[in-house]
Amino acid sequence: MVEKTLSGAGLRGQVAGKTALSTVGKSGSGLTYRGYDIKDLAEHCEFEEVAYLIFYGELPTEGELVEYKALLKTMRGLPLALREVLERIPADAHPMDVMRTGCSMLGNLVGEESFAQQLQKANRLLAAFPSIICYWYRFTHDDVRIETETDDDSIGGHFLHMLRGEKPNALHEQVMNVSLILYAEHEFNASTFTARVCASTLSDLFSCITGAIGTLRGPLHGGANEAAMELIERFSNPDEAERALMGMLERKEKIMGFGHAIYRESDPRNAIIKAWSEKLAEDVGDTVLYPVSVRCEEVMWREKKLFCNADFFHASAYHFMGIPTKLFTPIFVMSRVTGWAAHVFEQRADNRIIRPSAEYVGVEPRQVTPIAERS
Amino acid sequence: MVEKTLSGAGLRGQVAGKTALSTVGKSGSGLTYRGYDIKDLAEHCEFEEVAYLIFYGELPTEGELVEYKALLKTMRGLPLALREVLERIPADAHPMDVMRTGCSMLGNLVGEESFAQQLQKANRLLAAFPSIICYWYRFTHDDVRIETETDDDSIGGHFLHMLRGEKPNALHEQVMNVSLILYAEHEFNASTFTARVCASTLSDLFSCITGAIGTLRGPLHGGANEAAMELIERFSNPDEAERALMGMLERKEKIMGFGHAIYRESDPRNAIIKAWSEKLAEDVGDTVLYPVSVRCEEVMWREKKLFCNADFFHASAYHFMGIPTKLFTPIFVMSRVTGWAAHVFEQRADNRIIRPSAEYVGVEPRQVTPIAERS
Repeated sequence: MVEKTLSGAGLRGQVAGKTALSTVGKSGSGLTYRGYDIKDLAEHCEFEEVAYLIFYGELPTEGELVEYKALLKTMRGLPLALREVLERIPADAHPMDVMRTGCSMLGNLVGEESFAQQLQKANRLLAAFPSIICYWYRFTHDDVRIETETDDDSIGGHFLHMLRGEKPNALHEQVMNVSLILYAEHEFNASTFTARVCASTLSDLFSCITGAIGTLRGPLHGGANEAAMELIERFSNPDEAERALMGMLERKEKIMGFGHAIYRESDPRNAIIKAWSEKLAEDVGDTVLYPVSVRCEEVMWREKKLFCNADFFHASAYHFMGIPTKLFTPIFVMSRVTGWAAHVFEQRADNRIIRPSAEYVGVEPRQVTPIAERS
Repeated sequence: MVEKTLSGAGLRGQVAGKTALSTVGKSGSGLTYRGYDIKDLAEHCEFEEVAYLIFYGELPTEGELVEYKALLKTMRGLPLALREVLERIPADAHPMDVMRTGCSMLGNLVGEESFAQQLQKANRLLAAFPSIICYWYRFTHDDVRIETETDDDSIGGHFLHMLRGEKPNALHEQVMNVSLILYAEHEFNASTFTARVCASTLSDLFSCITGAIGTLRGPLHGGANEAAMELIERFSNPDEAERALMGMLERKEKIMGFGHAIYRESDPRNAIIKAWSEKLAEDVGDTVLYPVSVRCEEVMWREKKLFCNADFFHASAYHFMGIPTKLFTPIFVMSRVTGWAAHVFEQRADNRIIRPSAEYVGVEPRQVTPIAERS
């Protein structure tokens, strides 16, 4: 007759609410969005179909998809005041701070005036985030004011076009598409939970997403793909990578891109992005980064039974497409805004303010000593 | 032998972590900060002493207080880029969106580069928030660019001086001081919990505070003092207020400023701010707003056994000092940034990423239908 003890540490395993959006690590299927396996979605869908699924509950018909993509295209422009704000953020700022500030500023200009606007505003953010990061990046790094209203067919294509100044080829557009699908939704992770806590006070969507971006910024959450890149680019061949990893393991150094808080045996997203990273390596004639990545995967499994998570092969894939490492986590935002917003909608539909308790571990009651008598 | 069931609804009563900062609603004392009763602090301390207590753990000596206030004074200025951003936020924006954007932008300019800077950055935000809201407000409403680096002795005085363009009298400065003490810290409320979830990914302080502001913005959390103001200013005498309230109760309308999620019998902050509101009423010769407020308190207790929370008499108190209603919640931020930041420090000192679970209530596994076959 043991009473259930709540450790409180990180709320691990504690149910903090309900969701119809995804399952993570359930037996039989690693990751599902609204009942669909991530493998199935990544193989057969465009990212815009998945965004539609997450927001509206069902996959779109051909007509609905055409209409939805046309709608998102109309929302790529940035108001002048937002562009002027982005121009005032220094080139050496953290790109996630740029995303956070851009989102917050947009809320001042086209804010959510009532919850009836929630889908419209979520679509606005989905369409605007690639514009926000690329406008700032190109202005501060290349000294150009880019046009963000393009006729690119997809969100991934729009992003690569703005970033690199030319339309991407079909392979790159497809990899971006898959990548955005893989990162779209992941149940009650810390950034999503932030969005739900914020939503639980009935705050607006821009506040919820701004808070989620700030939470994703932390190195224990987003940023693992950037850390993975910093690791693999140190090595010039697989043997060198293996020697270095063995040394790091011996010194018990943290190695990013492996293991997961929920998954126990593998991350279902890894095999998908790994296959695309291999295709990109062939395409660019890489003989170093991809083999190094594969060797890292082998060593970590052999030595520690640690598997690659979604982030590890994203590093090489993004790199092969010419994306600067510091923009990896902002891409996560461009995708995850779908899951965040949908969780906000769910929280609003069945809300109670999220207000847990704390265990007090401070000093006992005491009286204020007059200031002249303190020492 | 009943197993403890976790409802999950709002995590009410569930311990989500430890704190040494405050107790809320514990028997014998309604609210304590680091062991000191809120009544004791409000009677004997300046807000800067309480901020020091919350950040550093102990009340300052006279010398420490002088030094601390001098330090905060040096941090009142806003970088040019931030002022330029504030000038681009429209006059009709939500003032909490201004605070959120100002905080986020400041993070781009003077960001926290390592946790060793956390106290310095918390003090920077404490000193800068009054400047941020007043700079935006005066620029967009009065068309002036104010100087935010003043020699006012206190944070409350600095705020009133910038807002109204002249130094406040001693009574007003004292009421601001008490008000800022009352709002400084309140355990695991939703905005503080947001700051801790964000901190748990090891994100930076500006992200944590930006997220907390967005959460406080919601009408179920901050904003109750604004709603209380909108209520009481409708009435020209106590009898009219009583008739209207009885009608609202009959129609089961929500009446803001009464009751509390944690306190059961009274909010210990109410008696304190009520006494100061009475003093201000005498000072300005009010014969309406204060008596109306008192009648509202009587009716709500008589009819519903609902007591005034901290927000209700704040409405009339702020109004007597000439503070526009829409700036009430930003004052809450100017104060609560102390509690938020201290909770971030605590989270960092004993961290585990906050990642709860969800109960899945969505559709069963299904397969993607080719898009041409969907209907």
